[in-house]
Amino acid sequence: MNGTLHDVTWRGFASDNYAGGHPDVLQAMVDANGGHQVAYGEDVYTSRLRDVIKDLFGSQADVFPVFNGTGANVVALQSMLQRWEAVVCATSAHVQADEGGAPERTGGFKLHLVDTEDGKLTPELIDRQAWGFGDQHRAQPAVVTITNSTELGTVYSAAEVAAVSEHAHAKGMRVHMDGARLSNAAAALGCDFRTFTTDAGVDVLSMGGTKIGAVGAEAIVVLNPSAVSGMEFLRKGAMQLSSKMRFVSAQMLALFDGDLWKRNALHANAMAARLAEGVRDIPGLQLSRKVDANAVFAVLPADVTARLQQRFRFYTWNEVTGEVRWMASWDTEEADIDAFVAAVKAEMASVSQ
Amino acid sequence: MNGTLHDVTWRGFASDNYAGGHPDVLQAMVDANGGHQVAYGEDVYTSRLRDVIKDLFGSQADVFPVFNGTGANVVALQSMLQRWEAVVCATSAHVQADEGGAPERTGGFKLHLVDTEDGKLTPELIDRQAWGFGDQHRAQPAVVTITNSTELGTVYSAAEVAAVSEHAHAKGMRVHMDGARLSNAAAALGCDFRTFTTDAGVDVLSMGGTKIGAVGAEAIVVLNPSAVSGMEFLRKGAMQLSSKMRFVSAQMLALFDGDLWKRNALHANAMAARLAEGVRDIPGLQLSRKVDANAVFAVLPADVTARLQQRFRFYTWNEVTGEVRWMASWDTEEADIDAFVAAVKAEMASVSQ
Amino acid sequence: MNGTLHDVTWRGFASDNYAGGHPDVLQAMVDANGGHQVAYGEDVYTSRLRDVIKDLFGSQADVFPVFNGTGANVVALQSMLQRWEAVVCATSAHVQADEGGAPERTGGFKLHLVDTEDGKLTPELIDRQAWGFGDQHRAQPAVVTITNSTELGTVYSAAEVAAVSEHAHAKGMRVHMDGARLSNAAAALGCDFRTFTTDAGVDVLSMGGTKIGAVGAEAIVVLNPSAVSGMEFLRKGAMQLSSKMRFVSAQMLALFDGDLWKRNALHANAMAARLAEGVRDIPGLQLSRKVDANAVFAVLPADVTARLQQRFRFYTWNEVTGEVRWMASWDTEEADIDAFVAAVKAEMASVSQ
Amino acid sequence: MNGTLHDVTWRGFASDNYAGGHPDVLQAMVDANGGHQVAYGEDVYTSRLRDVIKDLFGSQADVFPVFNGTGANVVALQSMLQRWEAVVCATSAHVQADEGGAPERTGGFKLHLVDTEDGKLTPELIDRQAWGFGDQHRAQPAVVTITNSTELGTVYSAAEVAAVSEHAHAKGMRVHMDGARLSNAAAALGCDFRTFTTDAGVDVLSMGGTKIGAVGAEAIVVLNPSAVSGMEFLRKGAMQLSSKMRFVSAQMLALFDGDLWKRNALHANAMAARLAEGVRDIPGLQLSRKVDANAVFAVLPADVTARLQQRFRFYTWNEVTGEVRWMASWDTEEADIDAFVAAVKAEMASVSQ
Repeated sequence: MNGTLHDVTWRGFASDNYAGGHPDVLQAMVDANGGHQVAYGEDVYTSRLRDVIKDLFGSQADVFPVFNGTGANVVALQSMLQRWEAVVCATSAHVQADEGGAPERTGGFKLHLVDTEDGKLTPELIDRQAWGFGDQHRAQPAVVTITNSTELGTVYSAAEVAAVSEHAHAKGMRVHMDGARLSNAAAALGCDFRTFTTDAGVDVLSMGGTKIGAVGAEAIVVLNPSAVSGMEFLRKGAMQLSSKMRFVSAQMLALFDGDLWKRNALHANAMAARLAEGVRDIPGLQLSRKVDANAVFAVLPADVTARLQQRFRFYTWNEVTGEVRWMASWDTEEADIDAFVAAVKAEMASVSQ
Repeated sequence: MNGTLHDVTWRGFASDNYAGGHPDVLQAMVDANGGHQVAYGEDVYTSRLRDVIKDLFGSQADVFPVFNGTGANVVALQSMLQRWEAVVCATSAHVQADEGGAPERTGGFKLHLVDTEDGKLTPELIDRQAWGFGDQHRAQPAVVTITNSTELGTVYSAAEVAAVSEHAHAKGMRVHMDGARLSNAAAALGCDFRTFTTDAGVDVLSMGGTKIGAVGAEAIVVLNPSAVSGMEFLRKGAMQLSSKMRFVSAQMLALFDGDLWKRNALHANAMAARLAEGVRDIPGLQLSRKVDANAVFAVLPADVTARLQQRFRFYTWNEVTGEVRWMASWDTEEADIDAFVAAVKAEMASVSQ
Repeated sequence: MNGTLHDVTWRGFASDNYAGGHPDVLQAMVDANGGHQVAYGEDVYTSRLRDVIKDLFGSQADVFPVFNGTGANVVALQSMLQRWEAVVCATSAHVQADEGGAPERTGGFKLHLVDTEDGKLTPELIDRQAWGFGDQHRAQPAVVTITNSTELGTVYSAAEVAAVSEHAHAKGMRVHMDGARLSNAAAALGCDFRTFTTDAGVDVLSMGGTKIGAVGAEAIVVLNPSAVSGMEFLRKGAMQLSSKMRFVSAQMLALFDGDLWKRNALHANAMAARLAEGVRDIPGLQLSRKVDANAVFAVLPADVTARLQQRFRFYTWNEVTGEVRWMASWDTEEADIDAFVAAVKAEMASVSQ
Repeated sequence: MNGTLHDVTWRGFASDNYAGGHPDVLQAMVDANGGHQVAYGEDVYTSRLRDVIKDLFGSQADVFPVFNGTGANVVALQSMLQRWEAVVCATSAHVQADEGGAPERTGGFKLHLVDTEDGKLTPELIDRQAWGFGDQHRAQPAVVTITNSTELGTVYSAAEVAAVSEHAHAKGMRVHMDGARLSNAAAALGCDFRTFTTDAGVDVLSMGGTKIGAVGAEAIVVLNPSAVSGMEFLRKGAMQLSSKMRFVSAQMLALFDGDLWKRNALHANAMAARLAEGVRDIPGLQLSRKVDANAVFAVLPADVTARLQQRFRFYTWNEVTGEVRWMASWDTEEADIDAFVAAVKAEMASVSQ
């Protein structure tokens, strides 16, 4: 037996996907095991997941489990786009910045980029790219995608989402939400999922499970069936169709069960807030973004960052400005935060002397 | 808690991916849980997997875990192909018949098809498509892909694979093996993996875990590093890069641990043999393919098939000829086989009267 | 001045696109020159072409000039297909055999192949691939494409086309005709274009101009507007949108003017018939296909072929069987045929002695 | 006969591809007509073109005629890129702004965008996107593409091109030049093509013919053969392979013959300069870009623009700022400019009163 090969007590601040799975998620996979279940989604766990999704997002909703976030985004967007259509997104969007060109190369669609202050699109910002309708020389803007919570740690309110949706719909466009951290957004907003998705006019959602306690489970949630077509074929063709889907669906079910997602997200967000509070008043260190969810961005001296990175794992976000990103996870502990804050203070103090 | 929602005692003969995961695989996932591990493949389980693969396939080998078999095939083939190159494969190959056009649409490459008797390519058959080198009007044949065990339940011997490889290499082509059921092939051949892959000249392998006891784990195994390029970028761009990769790698490790793959495969193959033996002499029923691994193909009257399908789950392979496919899995039990054989006999008897 | 660099008296039998343009076509380009015309299709020549097409194919028809036949086929088929849909075609179809993988790689769609005797699909043959509707594992058969005249020199009658269309439509599929040699087919059938296209249920047509006397002009002709979408965007994205489109449209107009297409096609077909008659009774030489249009296929000894190819340019069609293809063009002269027939006779005679 | 259907005396300022072809170009097509020539590029005109290109760009250079500028750009860039690589370009680049998503969808590659002041990249600007080498999450920056003359009417000097090339090469990247208006750039620089292409480190060039007097002819010119692979296959697969290529090559030859390109370009540039001079001092009108080549950009009141557009054809470049673009062509006459300047003056005068 290989058994456990790693130090289960070590945790860092690099990413919420460095964390493992919540024990309830793994137990759910064990529970879903045994006997035979029809492959490719005709199992009872996927069926139950569909029921749960309808409860959460409305009876018109449907769900398509997939493997990962990039897969969810690309398949969801393909299902919303004709071959000649394009997507309006923030320059900081994961789909633009961190998916290795999958949208363009594998999805076959162009992204029309908008620079933002805080990772959030607004009707005004959307208009910078929502033009040229009918012009054969321009990849037709057809979908607006927003991320909630954003890649910069901010959260769209339900009203902000609704403003985006109304504007997009008025222009004949559809709205996709990248919800890789949807739970963190919901926890930050203090509301259920539906309030800032279905009820705010979102047409299709990429719903994250992996970052909030699954070991590998994401889902495309269709909120407006008229906004998509060919989803099952597209999922298959994009190589995102799980054969033993029961094990993906069971993970999502575990996250919804007893609102595990909410407990995990509230905790992760609280740990980020604790971190932000802990470092906020350190001279020479600047919190560079609003801390709405589970991400803390700060600017500090490069040598301090370098020394901290020898002891704690986290990423430099911007080499030029010295901005770093610290992510809290569902399994981050108060002691982790406190030790890290102490280390930051100590390193910053050594600088300022 | 959702708990177990399905009948864990029910098993059928539809597909080896209707089965769940071996308990050791799920335990390995639990063991790999806890603490933080670097995402996207820099974890200790993936590192250990790399060591195991080198032990099994040679020190030059490398491994790239992915989500599913279609993903393994498409990414592996992309890594072996320039944009303008194409793949020679059997008309019955999974990559041609069952991947929803993913190779063409998502992979961007053409398949040159060859009809076969038994799902197996030979040098002579390859030559039906291995021509037109340098002709700009022809998608250039550059890779031969073979499946072992094949989609028709047959197994290539090491010598047969070597003959394919030598022929392909002599023409400047590379060789890919779709090993979604590689363990079944190895068990049937009674040899280790290396004998009929690395040592038989295969350049790149899609190695299956899911069908032989994982819950969702496949891997691209590069046997000849000079045959590929850009694998990590291609995997990412094809949306097959797992963030919490430790849980995929841990599954593969569990299958290799103590040769679990072999026990599972020997068992599945034995169950197929038992089934074949049980029905072989039934008047009016014809075994239509050689039973080398874990698949049994038979031709029987359509009404018998229909009645059997009301009680046992399996697929009709060919509506026209009445051929059906019965798959044995790692978890198929002797009693399952015996009950099914009895049912077939009874139904066939009622016909012949 | 470069002037004329080649021997304008030399002609061969390799392909109808070895020929130049009919003088009237070049004069039409000169006539269309001078002054400014709106680019990208809003010129008066394209507008006139649209009127002519409506006269020829029905008032619902529309036309989209493109650069070449592969472009016409790929754009036409894309416009008829959702991303997950596929095309049923003959294994001998140009789109399958001679387009360098453009349909798969650039068009992004799979071809479902059917072997035929004479290059022609029938309802029965279509059924070999027209199945699996709704099965997510199968690229969905959605369009049948037929070539008229075919790559094997045969011609579909209007009734044969209608049978294909009725069958395809009954299955919910659409029909595309590759008309790279549509004029040759029409001349062979002795009818107007409409009889065996619009009136026979064809939805979209790739209409060839280059092979029948243009220097470079093809067009997508939409006969059933409900069968396509996004044509202008797809043409642009496929890099088939001509900026100075007036010069493409003017070529097509010249071919339609006074039925130049018909005179050219009747002549080319007659030259092929003359060639076939001339060699038909040569001992040891076998005409291997029906000669319906402007192609003659024959089987003769490889050494005879080799010697003939030293003096006349033509292609070996099948190295194994020794089949060759001889194409007549709009500019082939009786003397060309007679000299070639004499040469074939002489070479064959030297063999049989 | 259709004859001439349009007013050959009308000219506007919308685009240099509203113009027709220079009479010498059409005569060259007539000269290339007659007899048979091997299709798909094995004709003597393409062969001669290759010689001319070697004379102009160096003996290592090769040429691949294509149909249009988007085709030239996409095929050239594909030939320089592995599947996972990406292109750094200005946000204003034609490949980004005006090709309907062809690079992403049909070419399959991502564009990394950089905002510029004047349409020109510099080493510093390139560095905004030339990072993340080896990071699997980032489409790998591998090619820098620059346009000369730019879409904003400016011209890179040879030294500026060399600075871009040196910087790109030092980072392991290759350099592509979109030369849709290369002749205008050369004329503006007063030098031969080689000085600011081959000798300035450009690896691959898209060379324009259409805008400077062809009726439809562009070419990919490979200056550094080691920077590309598979060009002929890629051209075919991208549907840019002309069958009767002699007629494309003959057009390019005509442009090179006696430096017709230079006469045309010097004239077009001079006409733009005349226009700029004519309107420069009009109160209330602002020339908004440097006038290096044949484009003039100006900002003027929207109602003046609207009235002018009723009489003269030209495009509004930016609806928000009121910027317009006026293009001079090889066939623009002094009287055209003078009449237009007078009209602008009159309309502006009526405003200021």
